[in-house]
Amino acid sequence: MTISSGSDLSVEDIAKAAKAAFEESQLLPSAIRKDALQKIKTQLEHSKIEILAANKQDMEAAQLEVDAGRMSESMLKRLDLGRGDKWDSMLQGIQDVAELPDPTGAVSYASELDDDLELYRVSCPIGVLLVIFEARPEVVVNIAALAIKSGMEMYTSSRNAAILKGGKESNRTAILLSQAISLGLAQTPLPATYIQSIQTRAEVSMLLALDQYIDLVIPRGSNSLVKNIQNNTRIPVMGHADGICHVYLDESANLQKALRVVVDSKTDYPSACNAAETLIVHTSLLETIWPEVARALLTAGVHLLCDTDTLTALSALPSPTCPPNFLSNVKASAASDYMTEHLSLTLSVVTLPSLHDAIRFINAHSSHHTDSIITECSESASAFCRGVDSAGAFINASTRFADGFRYGFGTEVGISTGRIHARGPVGLEGLVSYKYVMRSKAPAGHIVSEFGSRENERKFKHAPITATTVPF
Amino acid sequence: MTISSGSDLSVEDIAKAAKAAFEESQLLPSAIRKDALQKIKTQLEHSKIEILAANKQDMEAAQLEVDAGRMSESMLKRLDLGRGDKWDSMLQGIQDVAELPDPTGAVSYASELDDDLELYRVSCPIGVLLVIFEARPEVVVNIAALAIKSGMEMYTSSRNAAILKGGKESNRTAILLSQAISLGLAQTPLPATYIQSIQTRAEVSMLLALDQYIDLVIPRGSNSLVKNIQNNTRIPVMGHADGICHVYLDESANLQKALRVVVDSKTDYPSACNAAETLIVHTSLLETIWPEVARALLTAGVHLLCDTDTLTALSALPSPTCPPNFLSNVKASAASDYMTEHLSLTLSVVTLPSLHDAIRFINAHSSHHTDSIITECSESASAFCRGVDSAGAFINASTRFADGFRYGFGTEVGISTGRIHARGPVGLEGLVSYKYVMRSKAPAGHIVSEFGSRENERKFKHAPITATTVPF
Repeated sequence: MTISSGSDLSVEDIAKAAKAAFEESQLLPSAIRKDALQKIKTQLEHSKIEILAANKQDMEAAQLEVDAGRMSESMLKRLDLGRGDKWDSMLQGIQDVAELPDPTGAVSYASELDDDLELYRVSCPIGVLLVIFEARPEVVVNIAALAIKSGMEMYTSSRNAAILKGGKESNRTAILLSQAISLGLAQTPLPATYIQSIQTRAEVSMLLALDQYIDLVIPRGSNSLVKNIQNNTRIPVMGHADGICHVYLDESANLQKALRVVVDSKTDYPSACNAAETLIVHTSLLETIWPEVARALLTAGVHLLCDTDTLTALSALPSPTCPPNFLSNVKASAASDYMTEHLSLTLSVVTLPSLHDAIRFINAHSSHHTDSIITECSESASAFCRGVDSAGAFINASTRFADGFRYGFGTEVGISTGRIHARGPVGLEGLVSYKYVMRSKAPAGHIVSEFGSRENERKFKHAPITATTVPF
Repeated sequence: MTISSGSDLSVEDIAKAAKAAFEESQLLPSAIRKDALQKIKTQLEHSKIEILAANKQDMEAAQLEVDAGRMSESMLKRLDLGRGDKWDSMLQGIQDVAELPDPTGAVSYASELDDDLELYRVSCPIGVLLVIFEARPEVVVNIAALAIKSGMEMYTSSRNAAILKGGKESNRTAILLSQAISLGLAQTPLPATYIQSIQTRAEVSMLLALDQYIDLVIPRGSNSLVKNIQNNTRIPVMGHADGICHVYLDESANLQKALRVVVDSKTDYPSACNAAETLIVHTSLLETIWPEVARALLTAGVHLLCDTDTLTALSALPSPTCPPNFLSNVKASAASDYMTEHLSLTLSVVTLPSLHDAIRFINAHSSHHTDSIITECSESASAFCRGVDSAGAFINASTRFADGFRYGFGTEVGISTGRIHARGPVGLEGLVSYKYVMRSKAPAGHIVSEFGSRENERKFKHAPITATTVPF
């Protein structure tokens, strides 16, 4: 991995080098270095103590920013590579990606257009990616793994090349992670410019103008970051923006499922984009399931921003059933709360009288990320999945399942809130495009002017061919 | 189909109405009006004489523009709905689209994440399309057919909604085509705003700002049109831009294949984007196949813009083998000729010493549309298909085969020269996105906090499920 200082290499040089690395890698034999990911994993294991020490320094600097009110707690948490099993998950992600089937060279459409004229649609890498991400150091590793893997295949040996820009708050960690990746890559014939890193926003701005070299921009972060990038480039953008996820308690909701799924969706990792931000309660549950769910949320430390109905329902509860300070974390909501990604232990709550209203509310307020219904009614479940216009529509399952690792993709490059090219968690398949390959085996080749609607003209056969790879 | 006059309905109203039509159509039962396309076809047949008369008027007005030097001959040809079998092909396209399998509701990935936890990735419509196209009247019909069809499915009954803007030169024809579509749609419960038409560029500019309502812009036309739109919107753009297609005569080329494929690629329909613009001749063929190919092209009325080697080779020919005026249509090329989409009976010619050089030349000069190799060598064929970074890489077949109808897609919404979402001819599959649907059947639902890497925590199964549709 090459790390630009921002001064010794021009931004155009970086972009050109990436394109050249992409084209050059197309000429490498296809069987090479499938162990590149293994080598990177080994290097990372080798440098674990060093990297976690650097991450501690990043965390300490960030804590000062949090104390001064210049950084959110959720950003601090995302920065922490030592948190829970994040390190192990990161390494496991490389392993999982390495073991996935090759995503390119696969035939998704094949047709015999005429005798001796075959058409194949075959997957291939997109080309050069520009990835801009928040201060989450493990993303460097996830994306490097996917970018390397997304070209390692049998039919074309090309690979995606990538340029990475991470949040500055994670720079100490990211530099060591990048060095480990670099050491792993150096044991392969992949070009040195195959994965490059840049440090400044000015470099990003300049790269956004170079659509002749860069094929896809993947910004991960806030809605405003994604919109700002979309406003300033002709290059296609696969945005990973806000997650305003809903859980809807249907009329037929089961209490235990409601309790477990709502609490998990909100509290398992509140600063993640797949955490729930709004709870929708069916009117019929105001005096039954809702108080129990509220109690469980409050016990878990959640602050509730309630509409009038849910607020009234809680106020009316007999005091013996309430623990001390039961209501101190309950407040009335404002309309803007239903458009807010809290990213913390805060949940907006609204009451609605029907499934149909819930679907409409979600389509109007959700960020089209992931929404879940708690229901025992299969018709409601089916209508919810059809009607909710989001990347994920879940039945009796936590919104937190919306994740590339959990979906079985190994790891993810982001969760797309757009609906073009890739939607939801984006794994390897989101980093490939395809091309059409056609072969005539006829003695005189194939020309179009022989085909037509008249009697003496050739007609297309369009007979499906069963093929998983291109046979030439 | 609603036709806006540009004054009685605001552009935001149009966009909002389209989004509302899309959402409303999601609530219609899924089995409705599969015959909508048949009804439209019947209406078009009914109005054929009237429509072709209007087209004649458009052609006459355009001829005046051509005579005054303000319009190209190729634009005039594209305007002609009576040319050859264009009318029949247009109607056949509706029929073919109607008979295609439904593109939505299909499961492309399904996995059992855990006991009783199933994940399905299912295709669904993108939403609201804004299609801007050149003065080719039949495109109105092609796109309406694809937009209507791309939602007719079993799992979700939603449909793509569309807003269309055609070239003003075809307005008389397009208005009658739109009326016929409207009469067909009126016999179905699809909302009246389901397919709308706008007339002015100012309306397009305003629509490009409304990313909250419009999900995809499809501009068909020049590179500058596509770039201009990409520069002025946050909405994803699927561009259909220039076609600078190449035919490469490999060292091992067969003479008959070379003659047939080169002449067909250039002359079958020179104003189409899949016509060849540049011929690459391997150095070894300068005195063998090249003069024969040149003679065939010149006989077909083609003007040749040659590099020094191909020019010299023709000049050195013994005069008895040359017909009169053999060389009057041969000129020396300029560098810019190799970056030009001639769209007429003009062909740029260049000599190169190897397959590798041909691939590099194509990657540097092609518009990544479609390129073809004439070869008897399977290794060259395979390397060409791997190395050429274009939507289509063909072996011994005319570049003119790059077309949605010929590929078996029924018809096409355009030929994408980008590589995100859809590449090459875009049929129904290019108008669909997907969503993830997850169902827990466990007695207590599914939550994420029970999963982890520790021994007592649940592990993901990720066992593939064989399913073509969602079972709920």
